[in-house]
Amino acid sequence: MSQKRKVAILGATGAVGQRYIQLLQGHPWFEIEVLAASERSAGKKYKEACNWVMESELPKEIGNMTIADANVEAVEKAGDVDFIFTSLPGDLAGPVEEQFAALYPVFSKASAHRMEKDVPLIIPEVNPDHLQLIPIQQKNRGWKGFISTDPNCSTIQMAITLKPLMQFGLSQVMVTTMQALSGAGYPGVPSLDILDNVVPYIGKEEEKMESESNKILGVFDGKTVKNASFAVSASCNRVHVKDGHLESIYVKLEKKPSVAQVEEAFSNFKGEPQKLKLPSAPENPIVVRKEANRPQPRFDRDAGNGMSVTVGRIRSDPILTMKYMCLGHNTIRGAAGGGILSAEFAVAKGLA
Amino acid sequence: MSQKRKVAILGATGAVGQRYIQLLQGHPWFEIEVLAASERSAGKKYKEACNWVMESELPKEIGNMTIADANVEAVEKAGDVDFIFTSLPGDLAGPVEEQFAALYPVFSKASAHRMEKDVPLIIPEVNPDHLQLIPIQQKNRGWKGFISTDPNCSTIQMAITLKPLMQFGLSQVMVTTMQALSGAGYPGVPSLDILDNVVPYIGKEEEKMESESNKILGVFDGKTVKNASFAVSASCNRVHVKDGHLESIYVKLEKKPSVAQVEEAFSNFKGEPQKLKLPSAPENPIVVRKEANRPQPRFDRDAGNGMSVTVGRIRSDPILTMKYMCLGHNTIRGAAGGGILSAEFAVAKGLA
Amino acid sequence: MSQKRKVAILGATGAVGQRYIQLLQGHPWFEIEVLAASERSAGKKYKEACNWVMESELPKEIGNMTIADANVEAVEKAGDVDFIFTSLPGDLAGPVEEQFAALYPVFSKASAHRMEKDVPLIIPEVNPDHLQLIPIQQKNRGWKGFISTDPNCSTIQMAITLKPLMQFGLSQVMVTTMQALSGAGYPGVPSLDILDNVVPYIGKEEEKMESESNKILGVFDGKTVKNASFAVSASCNRVHVKDGHLESIYVKLEKKPSVAQVEEAFSNFKGEPQKLKLPSAPENPIVVRKEANRPQPRFDRDAGNGMSVTVGRIRSDPILTMKYMCLGHNTIRGAAGGGILSAEFAVAKGLA
Amino acid sequence: MSQKRKVAILGATGAVGQRYIQLLQGHPWFEIEVLAASERSAGKKYKEACNWVMESELPKEIGNMTIADANVEAVEKAGDVDFIFTSLPGDLAGPVEEQFAALYPVFSKASAHRMEKDVPLIIPEVNPDHLQLIPIQQKNRGWKGFISTDPNCSTIQMAITLKPLMQFGLSQVMVTTMQALSGAGYPGVPSLDILDNVVPYIGKEEEKMESESNKILGVFDGKTVKNASFAVSASCNRVHVKDGHLESIYVKLEKKPSVAQVEEAFSNFKGEPQKLKLPSAPENPIVVRKEANRPQPRFDRDAGNGMSVTVGRIRSDPILTMKYMCLGHNTIRGAAGGGILSAEFAVAKGLA
Repeated sequence: MSQKRKVAILGATGAVGQRYIQLLQGHPWFEIEVLAASERSAGKKYKEACNWVMESELPKEIGNMTIADANVEAVEKAGDVDFIFTSLPGDLAGPVEEQFAALYPVFSKASAHRMEKDVPLIIPEVNPDHLQLIPIQQKNRGWKGFISTDPNCSTIQMAITLKPLMQFGLSQVMVTTMQALSGAGYPGVPSLDILDNVVPYIGKEEEKMESESNKILGVFDGKTVKNASFAVSASCNRVHVKDGHLESIYVKLEKKPSVAQVEEAFSNFKGEPQKLKLPSAPENPIVVRKEANRPQPRFDRDAGNGMSVTVGRIRSDPILTMKYMCLGHNTIRGAAGGGILSAEFAVAKGLA
Repeated sequence: MSQKRKVAILGATGAVGQRYIQLLQGHPWFEIEVLAASERSAGKKYKEACNWVMESELPKEIGNMTIADANVEAVEKAGDVDFIFTSLPGDLAGPVEEQFAALYPVFSKASAHRMEKDVPLIIPEVNPDHLQLIPIQQKNRGWKGFISTDPNCSTIQMAITLKPLMQFGLSQVMVTTMQALSGAGYPGVPSLDILDNVVPYIGKEEEKMESESNKILGVFDGKTVKNASFAVSASCNRVHVKDGHLESIYVKLEKKPSVAQVEEAFSNFKGEPQKLKLPSAPENPIVVRKEANRPQPRFDRDAGNGMSVTVGRIRSDPILTMKYMCLGHNTIRGAAGGGILSAEFAVAKGLA
Repeated sequence: MSQKRKVAILGATGAVGQRYIQLLQGHPWFEIEVLAASERSAGKKYKEACNWVMESELPKEIGNMTIADANVEAVEKAGDVDFIFTSLPGDLAGPVEEQFAALYPVFSKASAHRMEKDVPLIIPEVNPDHLQLIPIQQKNRGWKGFISTDPNCSTIQMAITLKPLMQFGLSQVMVTTMQALSGAGYPGVPSLDILDNVVPYIGKEEEKMESESNKILGVFDGKTVKNASFAVSASCNRVHVKDGHLESIYVKLEKKPSVAQVEEAFSNFKGEPQKLKLPSAPENPIVVRKEANRPQPRFDRDAGNGMSVTVGRIRSDPILTMKYMCLGHNTIRGAAGGGILSAEFAVAKGLA
Repeated sequence: MSQKRKVAILGATGAVGQRYIQLLQGHPWFEIEVLAASERSAGKKYKEACNWVMESELPKEIGNMTIADANVEAVEKAGDVDFIFTSLPGDLAGPVEEQFAALYPVFSKASAHRMEKDVPLIIPEVNPDHLQLIPIQQKNRGWKGFISTDPNCSTIQMAITLKPLMQFGLSQVMVTTMQALSGAGYPGVPSLDILDNVVPYIGKEEEKMESESNKILGVFDGKTVKNASFAVSASCNRVHVKDGHLESIYVKLEKKPSVAQVEEAFSNFKGEPQKLKLPSAPENPIVVRKEANRPQPRFDRDAGNGMSVTVGRIRSDPILTMKYMCLGHNTIRGAAGGGILSAEFAVAKGLA
């Protein structure tokens, strides 16, 4: 990279926006040029508008940046940027992202555009070819830029593990999640709701897991993505954990592989980010633990700097074919880290 | 009940033993005559041998009782008892329970004898007829007394909900549990293991759920229990909750009932304990919650004084037929309360 | 009580308002006639406007009541009431309470009027004579009703323990609190702020503890309350506990009593509510625990149905005179229960 | 350092022993040569004997080391070592440490020898001159090696903050601690004891804080350490936090400095480890936070890689002179990190 790409972060004061800032410190390819947020924060210094909830210190120069309003005019006034990361709240994201996409590459963590036909829903290790939707999208919409979306956090980590299972004829996926509090943002879940408790409901989460997976694992046929056809059933719970979604997954695999074959498929799985040695790519997208009691959120969420998904307890299932536990860092691989990897991949492919 | 039955509790110092003591305070039919425990505690006053972990106060007269050694001779020396509750650790329970069963009715929370052919594995609402194994057991073994066993805590609450589903042709059950810390006894799970964490493994728990369910829901044919034949797959996790196991259950029901039919089957379910108005029987074995985010451990574990199982989020499953959440108090319905109900039922049936 | 007093609760949807509702179920003297809250909730059914966070079920008839706007006209239209409980947010409480006090007795949990000269700051066991400020207040202000205030939750429990220490010449009080999450109301403290953490700051809490104590323990001289003159230094922390404030207290007592004398003073302490056998009065305002590791929030907060304060670890202090730990239930004795006891006392004295 | 010093860790399987191993990975001066533990573990591979509870992975080569029995003969057989770190349980540590000290420098985290006249109780920033007790100790006892001890975890962080306050005429210290679970080792505190709770008692902790502080801050007069003479009163509590002890401290300072002067004294404090640029020395032994709600365990425990102590909320005290909050990482600065810094300092001074 001869020169660093300059980026704007929309939704910079939120929990995911903060994670973007944290992960972009010292990034070899990207530097933060503009921080943007809603009108309420615009015009304030970042350190005054933001309740910083990362454990690492708010970098001083970031704290002193003035927040721009999250629209094209204000962002352009605040600086020259090459592309955009967005982690705006769902209801705001839709139109704002379109406004930016007319001019800039937009890497979006919002759900607004995920399921649109010409919008890629990208996990670079899983469906790199879906990036080929971008010229189609640009043509369809007359945009210079584009929108590339990242899946929902609980979907990303599951989809990464499903990819190497596709070869075995994946036909059914049942999943019960135990999701971390940071997935609800900040202030998010009140402490009185979750102390000594589990909340067996996360709004729209099951629907997202059930609908996004088939698009992600679909095949790009030159014109469009043909969705995969396995069935998904999800049951989503919030547990008393800070970071790291844990998922209990049962899969039906028509070719009936052995536990050893599944372990091997997980261990050997590599994608384009690994081949391209992208800065945020973990050495192993999937880490296999053999201990009886792993993965665990506190011990495994930081594997591969939070970018690896850890699986364990791979065992035969008496009803479907195989069951296993899957853990990922929901605000790194599942949010800001995943978004950065998508952008790195797009840059490497000459798209941004 | 003209006169109260006198009972001994074996394993009285453990967490389940303590719960027996707590629940038997003021019981209309039973009174505690002897507290017994391992040699290490025998001879000491209860209040000195026991680290009382119930939130209610240790009753004074209980605290001053002297603990007997957990063998027949010592227990008989300590008092005249009508029957025995045991919550001994698994490895000790087997031979000690047999020694007592030669002379006394034994209601056991231990796993040692659960799967033996002539030993009933009782949930009074679910399989009252299995009590008819007792005369067969007595004849087989030449015992005056008998052993009646209670299922594993995570199995009990699930089995109660499966019973009313049998009419719909239950063929498959997949379950992921989120189990409370008290299920591991005391001292049990170290705080450093579970703070900001989930442990995706509980030794032998999945095996118990998978094997016990078919016996419980089996049919007594006059001679023996013919196991039910649905398939069970379990995945068991420990979460940061004090009491109350939460279970995410998916079932295949061959007759494809609607959500409303399943709700109705749950709501209307009553068993013999309700008809007999046993002292510990909850009015409703199953409570159906309609809110989107229930059942929750902290809010629902005390339903029916901890003896009701609460279900919620009943919805169609895209792969099997139906999915729902199920919650029960693991040390009341799942342990001491369940044992007391079993004893009440046996007494009502003239067996103890 | 020939007939039950009818009460209105202002701020009925908040966490303290909910506790009032819970504690007034089956109350022998009082019944809920009107529930009032801010404009946002007014006109809705209680069950629709309120996120019920008590562990006990929302009583059906309460859930179906329509919420009145928190002003005199709307409350009077909604029902005939004898007096008012208020737990309005601090900024709203001031003028609304005055409006009601012109006509009705008002028992207030808000801080707005606590420090006013003619307003009693009541703990019935501690300063029953302060109720004599009421006729003075009525004369001053030309009110038919009056405002009686309850202290801040962390102050109440400390002040109850300081009262029997006054006889020993109390001159200095140093306190570090470890306060429960429910003290911040609902939604209150975000889970991400307190998981694996302590927050060493609670806005205005130290100031309240330092200023209120001397008024509470002051002497009514026939015209006014002459404040006590001991010095107070407080340091307030929020910890990961649902209910129950724990306080580490160090006191200077000029008469240098022994530990045994202090224990006896605590144990023997009774007040007018005990003599009058008020419905909510605990048998012992102060419970003394002798175990090395008590009081603990989860085990002692419900002592005396949440109305007793538990002390323990009473020991000589190498710098001041004595140190001890003090625990109280912050939303029962420290809020709704304390308010109800104040009202019972006023009724018993013919004031309401 | 021309060649790395080779070290043995006694008590290597415990929680502090594990932290020693973690912190010594890649240490520029020291390398682990021998891991020793009790007879029960001796002879086993480390990975088999140890339940590794650090969040970082157990290094492979460490996992494969064979554990030696914790006596001189066995350790010498296992390797040539230059000095010894011990974190043996209190009751074992005394005689074992003496046996080793006859031949080797011993840096001890155990309390056994802390209060002996000729044994230094070292915090290198606070009392570097106390190291001069070592030749005296060696002469007294006829040892080639020596014992240097580290204070109790809760004392270390407080003593670091007291050092710069000595100039203001420190005469009284009152402290209430909120201590982390890791301070109790592993398995340590049962989860059922601390969930939704605080335990207001830690065995012997208050006594240690009260006795050790005066020795640490005493003056070496060429022959012995003359203890400082301020009074200390401690009240110690266990809270639901993984790492990081938080302390609420009140001090009497005869010279009545202002808040600004105290802040400056804290901020400017440096010690010999900083001058010598020892590998584990933090840039600032004390970090001053100005936010109203800091320090907090989760956000501040890792300051200076866990070797800085963070203070905040410095404010005038209405009774003594000043009050503030103090936070330190109890298993880094308060245990293994502190021990390593002590050894670095002794090496730099030519003593090991």
